Amino acid sequence: MRVLLTNDDGIFAKGIEALYEALIAEHDVVVVAPETEQSAVGHAITFLDPLRVKPVKRNGAFFGHACSGTPADCVKLAIRELVRPLPDVVVSGINLGANVGINVLYSGTVSAATEGAILGFPAVAVSIDSFEPSDFSAATDAVLRILERIERFGLPRGVSLNVNVPNVPASQVRGMRVTRQGRLTYQESYDRRVDPRNRVYYWLTGNIVETENSPDADVQALADHYVSVTPIQHDLTHYAMLEELKHWGLEAESGPGDFFLAPAQSK
Amino acid sequence: MRVLLTNDDGIFAKGIEALYEALIAEHDVVVVAPETEQSAVGHAITFLDPLRVKPVKRNGAFFGHACSGTPADCVKLAIRELVRPLPDVVVSGINLGANVGINVLYSGTVSAATEGAILGFPAVAVSIDSFEPSDFSAATDAVLRILERIERFGLPRGVSLNVNVPNVPASQVRGMRVTRQGRLTYQESYDRRVDPRNRVYYWLTGNIVETENSPDADVQALADHYVSVTPIQHDLTHYAMLEELKHWGLEAESGPGDFFLAPAQSK
Repeated sequence: MRVLLTNDDGIFAKGIEALYEALIAEHDVVVVAPETEQSAVGHAITFLDPLRVKPVKRNGAFFGHACSGTPADCVKLAIRELVRPLPDVVVSGINLGANVGINVLYSGTVSAATEGAILGFPAVAVSIDSFEPSDFSAATDAVLRILERIERFGLPRGVSLNVNVPNVPASQVRGMRVTRQGRLTYQESYDRRVDPRNRVYYWLTGNIVETENSPDADVQALADHYVSVTPIQHDLTHYAMLEELKHWGLEAESGPGDFFLAPAQSK
Repeated sequence: MRVLLTNDDGIFAKGIEALYEALIAEHDVVVVAPETEQSAVGHAITFLDPLRVKPVKRNGAFFGHACSGTPADCVKLAIRELVRPLPDVVVSGINLGANVGINVLYSGTVSAATEGAILGFPAVAVSIDSFEPSDFSAATDAVLRILERIERFGLPRGVSLNVNVPNVPASQVRGMRVTRQGRLTYQESYDRRVDPRNRVYYWLTGNIVETENSPDADVQALADHYVSVTPIQHDLTHYAMLEELKHWGLEAESGPGDFFLAPAQSK
């Protein structure tokens, strides 16, 4: 397949290099990745500023295009402008640090895959549950197996796969588990500090204090040393709440002109 | 109620001022909003850099705290550190430009409300379908009515409301409609330009080419001149796809040690 490869740790990160090396053995790979680390940018896109693109070499040979934007920008720019012929699949990673539970929402790695799905391409995000992994082979192997399945079965339009790999040697990975986004609760706080010019600044810090231990939750699959595979979509509607909201009487007040006759704002 | 008010157009924007003026007539309001415009930042949060906070005056009186981060940062910092007693509800807006369809995902306005919901607070995002609105009264009136309902009925933990207001005079608003996130298709491209130093840059541009015209879609409610109210959540799992993925045979290959015995990566 023709693979568009990106990430959020930046084009010079180890994880994207390991994935590139694994992918080129079987696929045609084009890299468009952020020039600098873009962790926790979520689904940010850039339109107030222009984007710039630079060729990047690794080990003396052309490796890919470094883009000044976010992971979602990289995918959008690649597909709308830079990469022809178009890719068959978008792959994002390997991210350092798991993207499970609520972190899925903050993740630039996942948002790159989501952007691929929005634009109509099958997409895979892959992360490893470590900030200093000794070995990427379980992750690269998982991606190759999943790409083989995508080639065989396809993915419905708008769906991407969020893959998380436990931080154990490949031989100790117990297999794959299809999961849903689990619950993860952080105890967060801000370190209040004072800079050398006596001005206050705040730095986010936090620890996970509670994780969901249902076996079908992404967080628990990782804890059980399984590769977690979660299908992801981008409709944020809370469908169960739709019906309940209809009993709030908001719609009942409807009627041409009579709803907003008495605006509450008095300036 | 005690309202934490934020936005993504920045603390000096007109929309947040109009909403502040309307809210203080009935509620206790504390403003923590981005120092600068943060459109399309999605659910970005800042942890690689510190955040700074400055008091901001408007018309000679204290208006609120300007924060150097994103809308989600503002809510997190407010709730975890700055604002005591804690708010009863988080309100984000009034954004210039509708946040319907896929734009919900890119929206900093919506992500501020989502962050409030993640942290356990009821939350409302409000946007107006215009970049140059002449009148915010339909939007402020809608927010006040919705806050009254939230006070009466509550919102389940993790749910926020995404409110979009049509760009018509308040007397022409036809009422409110409870909606789901609709489909919106953009024809996007990048303008390829050359800077004065002869370097290429790309600027995102695009037009909506197709919108979903089902009456329960947020996009259509706006087009019909209704205020659209969509319940939003942050579980991105595609539940229908979960079952299908289980037939991909990925899990069947599971078993201690035998799945990853032959890593595909050969470096």
